[in-house]
Amino acid sequence: MKIRFYNARILTMANGFEIIRGELWVEGNKISYVGTNPKESNLRCDEVIWDREIDVSGNLLMPGFKNAHTHSGMTFLRSYADDLPLLDWLHNQVFPMEAKLNLDHIYDFSKLAIMEYLTSGVTANFDMYLSPKPIVDASVDCGFRTVLVGAMNDFTQSVEEMETFYKTYNQYHELISYKLGFHAEYTTGREKLEKIASLANHYKAPVYTHNSESQSEVEGCLKQYGQTPTAFLNSLGMFEYGGGGYHCIHMTDEDMAIFKEHDMSVVTNPGSNVKLASGIAPLVKMKEMGINLAIGTDGPASNNCLDMFREMFLVTGLQKLQLNDAAAMDGNDVLSMATLGGAKAMGLNDCDTLEVGKLADIIMIDLNQPNMRPIHNITKNIVYSGSKQNVKMTMVNGVILYEDGVFHIGEEPAALYERIESIVQNMKK
Amino acid sequence: MKIRFYNARILTMANGFEIIRGELWVEGNKISYVGTNPKESNLRCDEVIWDREIDVSGNLLMPGFKNAHTHSGMTFLRSYADDLPLLDWLHNQVFPMEAKLNLDHIYDFSKLAIMEYLTSGVTANFDMYLSPKPIVDASVDCGFRTVLVGAMNDFTQSVEEMETFYKTYNQYHELISYKLGFHAEYTTGREKLEKIASLANHYKAPVYTHNSESQSEVEGCLKQYGQTPTAFLNSLGMFEYGGGGYHCIHMTDEDMAIFKEHDMSVVTNPGSNVKLASGIAPLVKMKEMGINLAIGTDGPASNNCLDMFREMFLVTGLQKLQLNDAAAMDGNDVLSMATLGGAKAMGLNDCDTLEVGKLADIIMIDLNQPNMRPIHNITKNIVYSGSKQNVKMTMVNGVILYEDGVFHIGEEPAALYERIESIVQNMKK
Repeated sequence: MKIRFYNARILTMANGFEIIRGELWVEGNKISYVGTNPKESNLRCDEVIWDREIDVSGNLLMPGFKNAHTHSGMTFLRSYADDLPLLDWLHNQVFPMEAKLNLDHIYDFSKLAIMEYLTSGVTANFDMYLSPKPIVDASVDCGFRTVLVGAMNDFTQSVEEMETFYKTYNQYHELISYKLGFHAEYTTGREKLEKIASLANHYKAPVYTHNSESQSEVEGCLKQYGQTPTAFLNSLGMFEYGGGGYHCIHMTDEDMAIFKEHDMSVVTNPGSNVKLASGIAPLVKMKEMGINLAIGTDGPASNNCLDMFREMFLVTGLQKLQLNDAAAMDGNDVLSMATLGGAKAMGLNDCDTLEVGKLADIIMIDLNQPNMRPIHNITKNIVYSGSKQNVKMTMVNGVILYEDGVFHIGEEPAALYERIESIVQNMKK
Repeated sequence: MKIRFYNARILTMANGFEIIRGELWVEGNKISYVGTNPKESNLRCDEVIWDREIDVSGNLLMPGFKNAHTHSGMTFLRSYADDLPLLDWLHNQVFPMEAKLNLDHIYDFSKLAIMEYLTSGVTANFDMYLSPKPIVDASVDCGFRTVLVGAMNDFTQSVEEMETFYKTYNQYHELISYKLGFHAEYTTGREKLEKIASLANHYKAPVYTHNSESQSEVEGCLKQYGQTPTAFLNSLGMFEYGGGGYHCIHMTDEDMAIFKEHDMSVVTNPGSNVKLASGIAPLVKMKEMGINLAIGTDGPASNNCLDMFREMFLVTGLQKLQLNDAAAMDGNDVLSMATLGGAKAMGLNDCDTLEVGKLADIIMIDLNQPNMRPIHNITKNIVYSGSKQNVKMTMVNGVILYEDGVFHIGEEPAALYERIESIVQNMKK
């Protein structure tokens, strides 16, 4: 497909927060032109046979958001059991329902999550869940980009299985990649952790895990190993080739120094962190230290929605609140986290910006909505007043998967909704 | 107009959080039927000549949200100067721009806010701004419901002017009402405050004001009057007929007891409170004391968006975070605050629920969106994963003002946007 977008505002994210007026061309799955005047590049739009020419009407094209931590398959637990104490919720609500899951269910539930990502301008997810295959199938069938991460712990998956996944899914499909990872230090025994560290060093690969989400998790690790989770895992040689942590709320200065030293990413999940009363990650300090920061929604069981606009507002709002400083965590820095920071954390260096040769993961933000007016500052408008309602189009890998409220994912939403309601009714029996 | 909604889920809010399947009729500006089976009430839909019959397709009808504190006219400052320290922002950015406002500007800026309310399912606003007339005109022209509140302080409006406004706008138009109020204790001298209290007692009327938004405001009042703002104002006889406070973050037990004793409402504004680093109101405690709670977006200069979904999530999320308790502030209680609590605070007892004889202020929530699936718990879905994207229709006073993304407010959005951009460009010169 060859698609020409014209009459556009374009935030390439390759040049700070500068917004140009001009056009953007997509040929196949890549960006073939972006700029104010194709003729200056000796390109003429009338020499190309376009499949579509889209008048952007002054709206904004920008790189898609990267949802850098989620558990897509958990949509089935959305609003199943809210407003409960954490352990009661986990043990009496989440685990018994999860025990009834099969692979077909995970496929459908992941597809539902992908639909929601598209409505929120998300073009790639960093997904940790029980079994990779149904997530991979859902992403490939929809045309969505997914970076999988190992979900290993003492109860799920072996190191050998993860190695197979790693080799399989890094050469399976252009939309799919796989990172080494495990659920968390507190759910994974030392022997397994040491094996994962060996694997990471063998493949020279980064490793990702839930890290320091709760105070009790940190205290448990201090008691068992005499070190914080970050320091303990680092002492096993886990992060020789980098990686990252999800949540990273209760972090010491030494923990953050380890992240910086190993060029690791912190993925913050503020929606989940407030809803489960986990706390506020020290993001301003991490930013000052030069640690790469990214944003994730976490899974829909805990958040409950998959909305990068809500997450972006929370990222800056919670820092302002905690530091008692209305100037803390500039909105533009948050927009970087949601795009460039996520891409870096996920190893997606070929779809981070809107530049010639990059993969076409592009969204269109509707500026002709009351919440985007007046136009003093478009990027601040996106972070401080943007919402799903402003997502006019989401394109992944050169294909428009969502446009003006209509999904193009190879299946009618109504059919998927019907299957999902039927599955959850049976699970609740 | 006679409009029949059928094939609907209906959350009347008159009977807890029960959702019925059935239909709802609107005749003129009132609800004429709501229930599962009109025939049981000896009503037959084929005996009415309907202007429209709307298949709700299993989506949800519920009372519109009440935005119980806002400054609509401030849309012109949205994203004009974010991420600045509070006083710098107020004195160097907000005040100089406000000084250039005229009444025509306030009309256009208020209209822009009303459009945004409609996208968020808001059917009434409680509005404090410089001058009431342009706000009234904007609301009446759009068909929107507005409760005005006095904006008096030492620099704006006199007590005599407010009395005139009170008498004028409480019998001006069915969509408009007016409450006594002033900006805040720290901007209004004692003599004026005493006059307002006299007026309140003369008219047996409630009084509303910004209250205890910042710690420094409370300290200033303690220093000047030896009492907190609430206690001081109460000592002047300000709240003999009730009223309420906006923000109410830094409140003592005595303050809250005064609110309870005088049946006053607390209107919380969490979006503004995090963005301006003001703090978290002690809502769980207030709720336990039986104080009426409502939710407002505050003005778009501070928030920056006018989105009741974001506010609802923040109300519960911030309580959970502050109290370190994932069970704190049940989502359903938040939905009550955003509807019933707001209506009570604003004196809108005739459009609070969906019952026969009530004014038809109704919204339709799109459940056929991925963020509303599966349907375990619809009200929790609305609070925890709802967004503007789910608002399919907003009806005020029996008239559909917004439906499937299209505004019916007597003017094309593009024309308003153009005027607004032109005005702000001139203001910035």
